[in-house]
Amino acid sequence: MVRVGIINVTGYMGAEAARLLHGHPDIELVSVTGRSEAGRQLGDVYPHLAPLGLTVEPELGDVDAIVSALPHAASAETLLPYIEQGVPVVDLSADFRLRSAEEYEPWYGEHPAPQLLADAVFGIPELHGEEIAGAKLVAASGCHACAAILGLAPAVKAGLVRPEIVVDSKSGISGAGRTLGLSYHFAEANEGVSAYALGGHRQLPEMTQELGALWEAPAPQITFVPHLIPMSRGILATCYASLRDDAKINSESLRSLYEEFYADAPFVSVAADPPMTKQTAGSNYCLVYPLLDERTNRLVVVSCLDNLGKGGAGQGVQCLNLMLGLPETAGLTRPAVYP
Amino acid sequence: MVRVGIINVTGYMGAEAARLLHGHPDIELVSVTGRSEAGRQLGDVYPHLAPLGLTVEPELGDVDAIVSALPHAASAETLLPYIEQGVPVVDLSADFRLRSAEEYEPWYGEHPAPQLLADAVFGIPELHGEEIAGAKLVAASGCHACAAILGLAPAVKAGLVRPEIVVDSKSGISGAGRTLGLSYHFAEANEGVSAYALGGHRQLPEMTQELGALWEAPAPQITFVPHLIPMSRGILATCYASLRDDAKINSESLRSLYEEFYADAPFVSVAADPPMTKQTAGSNYCLVYPLLDERTNRLVVVSCLDNLGKGGAGQGVQCLNLMLGLPETAGLTRPAVYP
Amino acid sequence: MVRVGIINVTGYMGAEAARLLHGHPDIELVSVTGRSEAGRQLGDVYPHLAPLGLTVEPELGDVDAIVSALPHAASAETLLPYIEQGVPVVDLSADFRLRSAEEYEPWYGEHPAPQLLADAVFGIPELHGEEIAGAKLVAASGCHACAAILGLAPAVKAGLVRPEIVVDSKSGISGAGRTLGLSYHFAEANEGVSAYALGGHRQLPEMTQELGALWEAPAPQITFVPHLIPMSRGILATCYASLRDDAKINSESLRSLYEEFYADAPFVSVAADPPMTKQTAGSNYCLVYPLLDERTNRLVVVSCLDNLGKGGAGQGVQCLNLMLGLPETAGLTRPAVYP
Amino acid sequence: MVRVGIINVTGYMGAEAARLLHGHPDIELVSVTGRSEAGRQLGDVYPHLAPLGLTVEPELGDVDAIVSALPHAASAETLLPYIEQGVPVVDLSADFRLRSAEEYEPWYGEHPAPQLLADAVFGIPELHGEEIAGAKLVAASGCHACAAILGLAPAVKAGLVRPEIVVDSKSGISGAGRTLGLSYHFAEANEGVSAYALGGHRQLPEMTQELGALWEAPAPQITFVPHLIPMSRGILATCYASLRDDAKINSESLRSLYEEFYADAPFVSVAADPPMTKQTAGSNYCLVYPLLDERTNRLVVVSCLDNLGKGGAGQGVQCLNLMLGLPETAGLTRPAVYP
Repeated sequence: MVRVGIINVTGYMGAEAARLLHGHPDIELVSVTGRSEAGRQLGDVYPHLAPLGLTVEPELGDVDAIVSALPHAASAETLLPYIEQGVPVVDLSADFRLRSAEEYEPWYGEHPAPQLLADAVFGIPELHGEEIAGAKLVAASGCHACAAILGLAPAVKAGLVRPEIVVDSKSGISGAGRTLGLSYHFAEANEGVSAYALGGHRQLPEMTQELGALWEAPAPQITFVPHLIPMSRGILATCYASLRDDAKINSESLRSLYEEFYADAPFVSVAADPPMTKQTAGSNYCLVYPLLDERTNRLVVVSCLDNLGKGGAGQGVQCLNLMLGLPETAGLTRPAVYP
Repeated sequence: MVRVGIINVTGYMGAEAARLLHGHPDIELVSVTGRSEAGRQLGDVYPHLAPLGLTVEPELGDVDAIVSALPHAASAETLLPYIEQGVPVVDLSADFRLRSAEEYEPWYGEHPAPQLLADAVFGIPELHGEEIAGAKLVAASGCHACAAILGLAPAVKAGLVRPEIVVDSKSGISGAGRTLGLSYHFAEANEGVSAYALGGHRQLPEMTQELGALWEAPAPQITFVPHLIPMSRGILATCYASLRDDAKINSESLRSLYEEFYADAPFVSVAADPPMTKQTAGSNYCLVYPLLDERTNRLVVVSCLDNLGKGGAGQGVQCLNLMLGLPETAGLTRPAVYP
Repeated sequence: MVRVGIINVTGYMGAEAARLLHGHPDIELVSVTGRSEAGRQLGDVYPHLAPLGLTVEPELGDVDAIVSALPHAASAETLLPYIEQGVPVVDLSADFRLRSAEEYEPWYGEHPAPQLLADAVFGIPELHGEEIAGAKLVAASGCHACAAILGLAPAVKAGLVRPEIVVDSKSGISGAGRTLGLSYHFAEANEGVSAYALGGHRQLPEMTQELGALWEAPAPQITFVPHLIPMSRGILATCYASLRDDAKINSESLRSLYEEFYADAPFVSVAADPPMTKQTAGSNYCLVYPLLDERTNRLVVVSCLDNLGKGGAGQGVQCLNLMLGLPETAGLTRPAVYP
Repeated sequence: MVRVGIINVTGYMGAEAARLLHGHPDIELVSVTGRSEAGRQLGDVYPHLAPLGLTVEPELGDVDAIVSALPHAASAETLLPYIEQGVPVVDLSADFRLRSAEEYEPWYGEHPAPQLLADAVFGIPELHGEEIAGAKLVAASGCHACAAILGLAPAVKAGLVRPEIVVDSKSGISGAGRTLGLSYHFAEANEGVSAYALGGHRQLPEMTQELGALWEAPAPQITFVPHLIPMSRGILATCYASLRDDAKINSESLRSLYEEFYADAPFVSVAADPPMTKQTAGSNYCLVYPLLDERTNRLVVVSCLDNLGKGGAGQGVQCLNLMLGLPETAGLTRPAVYP
């Protein structure tokens, strides 16, 4: 059993990582930390995690690998010594997602450890599986980015679409974390939908970087608008891009393209019907549904997943499996909880 | 007092029309019909309407004007004799929204009364106020269409954008009516979001017709994808269109353009902050929020309203006011119910 | 027009009072205050109230009557000078609900103005209509208390039940106000139900006081447990009490008793079917549904209302109408917004 | 591996049983049936179950044990031949919960196989663990009944309370199954709470039977009122009973009593804080929270679980484990999905 620790188990992402690692056949969760709750039983902080029998610690104990669920900046700072010691790390924050400090800075501020960026791998296994398997530092992607990238990658790689892309993403409220805010107060968020981050959302550069790396065309010009949906979990990204004039595709061949692209991906399915986020809740699955709008010669892809699962902690565990030489699906095959 | 009747009060749209007409200063709601519930007290069908003291009738009594909340096809058939008698009619169905039977047919089937189309007016008062004031037959627009058209009209009319438009719309579940369906079962719809009508939604031709009429450019090429949101009421349409190369606009002038366009529109506000559907619930208000995505030179407009209010029965009452020579805002100035 | 002001318009209760007073036929809302938001447009704080065209002021302007939506203690302190000047006041806080400072103290702390308690009237018009009409200071009841008292009053007054009473109340989350708290974070409150205030809830003494005043039997022994429900608005109180051995009642006569009790109450209806909170949302109506559990010889009453409506600001406006000599129903006859 | 089949996998209860059996360490789910969907891939009916790779069959294949998720009456009829062959059966319907056909008949109609009742065991392992381990036919309890019985059993067995009991239960909407109904339409059920089955709910006799068997006092006189809550999953039962005059108990000893009663129960926890249904979603755990209302000398117990988990399919798997000689917790230790 590999002994794993979670840094900052007290946010939703850390708690989900703990839930997923509990019962993992090859990993033992041995240590969990959390600043404000140090010393408390994990089951007092999160009653659903009482069966894990863990205590929140101020510092990580002796572990073979780490999952960090700290916010950006704090994450890189805290992970630095472990990374320097060669401990395998999956970082769920944004600190190691972008390839350069220059790209990071306008969105997050000065990077706390730019020297580590060169060796970090972007943690979407469907695109970077081999690199992840050989990496010591993997950055799990953002939740919106994961849905959009998985939704668009086959078409972009095949050169089907023009670079002008619209990503209209819908997110459950756990995506904003457990920190309080008026927008997340039940009476404000319930029975309503709204767009946010209209001036630019931090996961935009991830999408641009990852989709841009898939083709030799000019960098994609993505307009990305996230929306807050009155549900706890889930991301559904609806992606729009005009077909290139030379694109030779019909509905059937489009579907085949997607199915082939994800033929070896255990957690991405090309859905038979338009998918619902609910069909992925609590799981590591992503459902993608591509179609052609023949009236306008436009590709539309609906892509959905659980923001804490495949869009976060689940993806992190998948990366960890690969890094540790374990089966990619270990501990992650539980179906979604539905309804 | 003008004596008004509602045909098919038993669906959500008809019930909302009844709620709005109750307490209207210049209109008395005197007759409501409903096939399956004829003979029952309206308050037994809808307890919240008990204060109206009405009985559901099989046929309309003697009225000066009519609001029809029947489904398409049934609506035109039922209204025909009244229209021929010259009774002013607001139809909340789709029967008189499109200008020709040819456009109607692929979406709804053969038109039951094509001879009436020439004199029908599309019921968005912000675009067709004068025509509505002189009309005997007005077709209130679809709910998605209303949000998208109000959101895009100022930019389209000013020739700012290219014809390729994406409308990503999010709808509360009352938009699907009171008829049962697995997609609307609480346990299926709750905690989930999904796209629907991916092969083409019936409100697409309304958008194309109305936006196309605003400019001399080629007809807009709209991709419209509606989504089902776990809330009872509300439409939020996020609209995307690339700016024309010759568009001279910045954030400030864009906002001014919208404010001027709606300067005399009592129910459309250019919102100071990104709006939430919840801010319009139960009211006849529409909130629009235009912005430029300067990274991609794209216009983004968020537009929201209550699908049963400004997107349906409220808009219908607004049209009725104009048709009857009443103040446009009569009976419609109640603020939204929030939270 | 009577010129009315609202103190502390920025909480949900104050905002609802503003919404209800807008369009009141005999009252003009002329001044609204709010400490933290003073100087801002009301429509910037609450976009749905933009049509009121008011500015949040630091202090109340010149008014003929006042509605206070301050929290307890602060309310009495702030109202004191106005009350001493004889300005008619409806207080939505708990400060003037209990008859003595002794009863107030264990739940709220020392009373800030005990000398006023003797002249304050408890603001449920169905029980105290005449006193309210002659009062200068009326305390609108708590929302749970209102539902429970209206549900039980006819049976208690008739001496049907034993003093041992259980009130199991279910509340929407706006009942907790707009202040942030982990329990009200959407992701925590959604998809869950929980009991709260298990050590005793502050509205318990109101119930005991008001029901106790209806009979000569020993004071009722009420166990009151409120529950948090994932909805924005609404209270549904399910009340249980064993019948007295000498109670002569059957289902039919029970219903008659309730109908007679509320025959002159414009806002309380004895429902034909088990009511839903949703049927009262946004309105001033209360629906009560009494029945006998013949297996156990127990009375069960389901009573529901909108916590911000009949359970708060609506009730306050109803009291204000009576105090000002206006029709009791003025401004309050809007049906609920459904669905 | 024991080869297990599920009859009627297409309802929520059957689908949940399939989800739980997938990944069970000692059980292989080999056959699932469903009348209306026979021949379809299970993943087409329920996309979240696609990873199971099963086809819905018209009849059960060769299996070692059976879980039936048929409705009552149909369940007994379908199970009869298997039971006669000695195949171990867990029935999730109500057919074998009550000890006699006489008790069954007023609630469900004539019993289809009364001869089997004598050997059936009521499936709450915390009360009947040994009998279940030796049984061939086990009837999992109703979801409300499970919450109420687990909440009250320790106090009833200890003789602390009087027989007059109130159970006010709150249920998520999946408890009503997947069959359509106006009460379960999203727009009707959302933002509302209501009581149902006020004339008597079918799970009442289970509560009376099981609690009555725990003491020698007169049969409990239970008033049980279930409520519909706008959430997908979860039961929270709030139970009220007056203490007997001779009850010697305080808060501390009450808690100890409960902790001792459930000391060996792996799935029932005495919660440190008032529990939320959400803390049990997707899991087999039940959280109970007993307290004394010292003002009224009354016991209050809050008990919550997932109606499809511990209140249904999870409990069924727990029983199956015992019947098959497997560890009681096998396949059931996944924590709840939170938030």
